[in-house]
Amino acid sequence: MRIPKHIGIIPDGNRRWASQAGLEKKDGYVHGLTPGLELLRLARQAGVEEITYYGFTTDNCGRPQEQVRAFSAACVEAVKLIAAEPVSLLVIGNTEAAVFPKELLPYTGARADLNGGGIRVNFLVNYGWEWDLAGLDRPGSDRKQIYRELHSHDVSRVDLVIRWGGMRRLSGFLPVQSVYADFYVVDRLWPDFQPEDFHQALAWYQKQDITLGG
Amino acid sequence: MRIPKHIGIIPDGNRRWASQAGLEKKDGYVHGLTPGLELLRLARQAGVEEITYYGFTTDNCGRPQEQVRAFSAACVEAVKLIAAEPVSLLVIGNTEAAVFPKELLPYTGARADLNGGGIRVNFLVNYGWEWDLAGLDRPGSDRKQIYRELHSHDVSRVDLVIRWGGMRRLSGFLPVQSVYADFYVVDRLWPDFQPEDFHQALAWYQKQDITLGG
Repeated sequence: MRIPKHIGIIPDGNRRWASQAGLEKKDGYVHGLTPGLELLRLARQAGVEEITYYGFTTDNCGRPQEQVRAFSAACVEAVKLIAAEPVSLLVIGNTEAAVFPKELLPYTGARADLNGGGIRVNFLVNYGWEWDLAGLDRPGSDRKQIYRELHSHDVSRVDLVIRWGGMRRLSGFLPVQSVYADFYVVDRLWPDFQPEDFHQALAWYQKQDITLGG
Repeated sequence: MRIPKHIGIIPDGNRRWASQAGLEKKDGYVHGLTPGLELLRLARQAGVEEITYYGFTTDNCGRPQEQVRAFSAACVEAVKLIAAEPVSLLVIGNTEAAVFPKELLPYTGARADLNGGGIRVNFLVNYGWEWDLAGLDRPGSDRKQIYRELHSHDVSRVDLVIRWGGMRRLSGFLPVQSVYADFYVVDRLWPDFQPEDFHQALAWYQKQDITLGG
């Protein structure tokens, strides 16, 4: 079985899930924590080498303050759960903005091997595509140079993006690393995550002819 | 009806179509010319303001020489057909490489209003995502500045990408302009294009909740 080395995860649908459950929108995010941990364990078992979670973005911060506080708190909890696993963890995003959660600063800057190390896990927090591209310094058409100058330079090329919640768009997710990524959409909302979502995505990926644009 | 202002077109499947028709792979491209023109007219009728065709890429040029010659010739013919329509036309790509077709140089550099002008048509020829990002000069997190410094700076944000041929990936198509694009995939191969492909994509687009990442 051909396993994608690096999977991007867009865990969308928390607010719709909350509304359907009769909750306030802000109360959906906390229901995405268990799925995130479950997915990590499935990815490790499958032999995936790297996984990137789309936590929250600079765009998201334009939402009502109570939602911003809620998804920020959920990201802090998610990173804590992941940090208790055998992982090689890096949190990536614009740490200079006030909205960046202080509790996550220790996980930024350099990747940390935790509990013996393991699968590379990137967690995007206050990430923006514009922030990622901000430092490009006339790299020329050298792809390696472009990669080196990204703020997300420690994130590899993405092979497969899986998005929950039915939307068929990247919403600013790692535009450079995702140029050749195959894109699989799960209609189920993220808090309703089922292991079969992941297994079906991997099964679909088997059937793709990977050309890297060639 | 909410019409996408700018549609990106990835006309994939020419080689598979040729193989299925008992032809050599290189002989598929010419069968994509009529669909391209038909699509342009449908887009104009629908009130689309801008359309970008993914002609060929720097990645594609690694293919066998007879295929490179064939898709390059097909792009020249496609641009000639488009240039006979009322359009505002711009050909965009790395013109400095030997593989760039000389016949298309007059359409590069500045957008030309032809036959009275009309829908903005961008045709990507020897385009590469790395070429597009090559000139970014420490733009900072100012999105307008990033746009201005792209080699494709005269191409607007893309609202909807339609890809024929079943693959669910962008393959390097305008990574910055496509960050928020909705992505619609048609299983049919490009030379088998039917008007209903376009109409179904527009109908699907109606149902999307456009948030620009917010």
